[in-house]
Amino acid sequence: MRAIDIIYKKKRGEAHTREELEFWVKGICDGTIPDYQLTAWLMLVCMNGMNFEETAILTELFAKSGTILDLSDIADYILDKHSTGGVGDKISLILIPLMAACGGKIAKLSGRGLGHTGGTIDKLESISGFNTGLSIDEFKKQVKDIGCALASQTTDLAYADKKFYELRDVTGAVDCLPLIASSIISKKVASGANVIVLDVKCGDGAIVKTKAEAEELSNLMVEVAKRLNRSITAVISSMEEPLGHNIGNSLEIIESVEVLKGRGPKDLVDLTFELGAVLLTKSHIAENKEAAIELMKQRIKDGSALEKFRELIKCQNGDDSCIDDYSKLPQASIIKPYVAQKSGYLKRIKALEIALACKLLGAGREKKTDEIDYSVGIILNKKVGEKIEAGEKLLDICANDESKIALAENMLKNAFEIVEEPTKPEPLIYKIIG
Amino acid sequence: MRAIDIIYKKKRGEAHTREELEFWVKGICDGTIPDYQLTAWLMLVCMNGMNFEETAILTELFAKSGTILDLSDIADYILDKHSTGGVGDKISLILIPLMAACGGKIAKLSGRGLGHTGGTIDKLESISGFNTGLSIDEFKKQVKDIGCALASQTTDLAYADKKFYELRDVTGAVDCLPLIASSIISKKVASGANVIVLDVKCGDGAIVKTKAEAEELSNLMVEVAKRLNRSITAVISSMEEPLGHNIGNSLEIIESVEVLKGRGPKDLVDLTFELGAVLLTKSHIAENKEAAIELMKQRIKDGSALEKFRELIKCQNGDDSCIDDYSKLPQASIIKPYVAQKSGYLKRIKALEIALACKLLGAGREKKTDEIDYSVGIILNKKVGEKIEAGEKLLDICANDESKIALAENMLKNAFEIVEEPTKPEPLIYKIIG
Repeated sequence: MRAIDIIYKKKRGEAHTREELEFWVKGICDGTIPDYQLTAWLMLVCMNGMNFEETAILTELFAKSGTILDLSDIADYILDKHSTGGVGDKISLILIPLMAACGGKIAKLSGRGLGHTGGTIDKLESISGFNTGLSIDEFKKQVKDIGCALASQTTDLAYADKKFYELRDVTGAVDCLPLIASSIISKKVASGANVIVLDVKCGDGAIVKTKAEAEELSNLMVEVAKRLNRSITAVISSMEEPLGHNIGNSLEIIESVEVLKGRGPKDLVDLTFELGAVLLTKSHIAENKEAAIELMKQRIKDGSALEKFRELIKCQNGDDSCIDDYSKLPQASIIKPYVAQKSGYLKRIKALEIALACKLLGAGREKKTDEIDYSVGIILNKKVGEKIEAGEKLLDICANDESKIALAENMLKNAFEIVEEPTKPEPLIYKIIG
Repeated sequence: MRAIDIIYKKKRGEAHTREELEFWVKGICDGTIPDYQLTAWLMLVCMNGMNFEETAILTELFAKSGTILDLSDIADYILDKHSTGGVGDKISLILIPLMAACGGKIAKLSGRGLGHTGGTIDKLESISGFNTGLSIDEFKKQVKDIGCALASQTTDLAYADKKFYELRDVTGAVDCLPLIASSIISKKVASGANVIVLDVKCGDGAIVKTKAEAEELSNLMVEVAKRLNRSITAVISSMEEPLGHNIGNSLEIIESVEVLKGRGPKDLVDLTFELGAVLLTKSHIAENKEAAIELMKQRIKDGSALEKFRELIKCQNGDDSCIDDYSKLPQASIIKPYVAQKSGYLKRIKALEIALACKLLGAGREKKTDEIDYSVGIILNKKVGEKIEAGEKLLDICANDESKIALAENMLKNAFEIVEEPTKPEPLIYKIIG
């Protein structure tokens, strides 16, 4: 078998056999197939697609290319949650302690932010001392001891996916459904959980833009996971405006703590409960959705969810005093309001523009090696559907550099759509699959 | 401008601007754009194409990325010839001395063989001592002094094309018309000739398989060349069977000398005259095609074309005694006949299978660094249209290794189509464009 014949085959639009995909993944992992052949093939997959069979095999090969965690000795049900990435999406920070407070065992490996969406690991690292680099043994022990752990992905998990993803990222091959599905599901399979909820974001600020695409991706992931003996439920949720009010690393820690204190914004709380209900019912902790939501409300009300977050931070060497005193988190030196140019009703807040403005302020990375500023970001003052007066504050820009504020303001010019007629936000949840 | 935005644009099927293509070619040449981004883009060009405007700009940028030869001080008309590559195609070896013998100035830079077709430079190097590595000054001086030179392409001619071609070759991006056109025409523009004939091969053994594709490529090349102030004529010729009888490096030198001695096979002589007539009329050496062919016949008959070839060999330090004594060329130690399995009429000789059999014997390269055996190859005993008896010799295998003969014989099994009804070969020339 030759690498170029694999490329020719996909160029002709034909489907690969298991043997061909094994040869291909092995060659990428051991370096006998060079990057420039992989990127040619990736582009062909973007153009000519992969069928279900190919996608399932590729996913399996990705998972098997690295360590596969075995967490089965901890409990019958190990929970996990994954989001395809949205703006202001801090749900992992809330859901992990919340599930543990409800009696679940949840083991979450996360990534860093790249592109326009933030990463849970970066957000956690805005807490002084927080150690995201747990070894596999530490990670397992902590899930056993306190019911939850939140660590950065070790490099040997789904090793092949890492190689493929790196090159997808630099060649515009990210938005390809079978490649997205293989990447996500292979990591979830390797992470050792057996009850998994996926938050599939859909809209302007997400990797998939349309409902049809989000459904196709969700169906594909659920089916591929089933083939690999994992129970996955996909919740398709709207990313037409940022989730919650705060966007930026330490700002999102604050808003997450607010949710755990029972003071969170409606959209963020609703989606957290929706995802949590899937995990609690599938793991038989709650009998049905209503009971699950009741249990979560209870654990927030009695303070045990917040205490679990404190325990998690302490266990991972973080300074938990930030929970009581937000000034212990990195603080922006300049807070500048950004106001509405006209009166009316807020029809859209473009998530992508908000995210790019935050990135310009220093909250995100262009390249892997870029430093990020944990303190900067945006605090939305208005959400879609609200009535706006000209001159009223739409958001606060939190920054450390006047010149970056100017860049962000320029980006924000196109972020808001204000109309004359009253308007309602899109439903937050489109569909649940699996 | 970012490399990834160029990729995104071609992925959306949009056309590039001159600025974008300048950025792209410059980045490839100076190494700031990595190979894996180039191959992604190349694959998108294969799938989504390039329009005429893009192709013309890319061609110009390729040509300008290296040295552009100026031969205008030698004569008003400088001739050149290029073939898109066929099996048994030794026409350059004949046409170069023939044009010079007719009074033309012809300056030809050639490549080595890669893939299944041979290279003129390799063929010439089967002549003992022949120096194909002329400097630009030596090359120019020789064209001035004796009217012709045949040297290998210097690396600084159309530098960008070399980078692009290397990666096209290893990623299956060779058979893409706008990329073929840019590659060929940029080198012709850089080579300094102003009257150029292209032999566009069409069929089983060629880079383009169908007449429609060959016409599209020819039109594209003629128009792109016009835009860059070069007069190019494309002659579309059949590559449904090998050209002439001999395939293999020294074997093709012998057959070329036979043509110059007036004893060449009809197809090879006819196509040589067709291409030569274009050059002689366009450079106003002959008034029309008939006069041009008459002149060429004359120069063969009076021995001056053969003497010009001798002069060329001597000028480039080769041993010209091989012209009179073919045993001075590398000789295969084993000559093994390959016979017909059944009687009938020869309908097809598949050029690709013949070429691959020669490669198995050692006549060609898989990788650039492979050594080739100048002596081996195939001598066809029959051509399409001939009557065949079972057991009659179809060809001689010239080899140095019994085990390689077995491999070649296996490849030859599918090379011949023998039918019951009398059959005629396809016309050799399909169309002349430009």
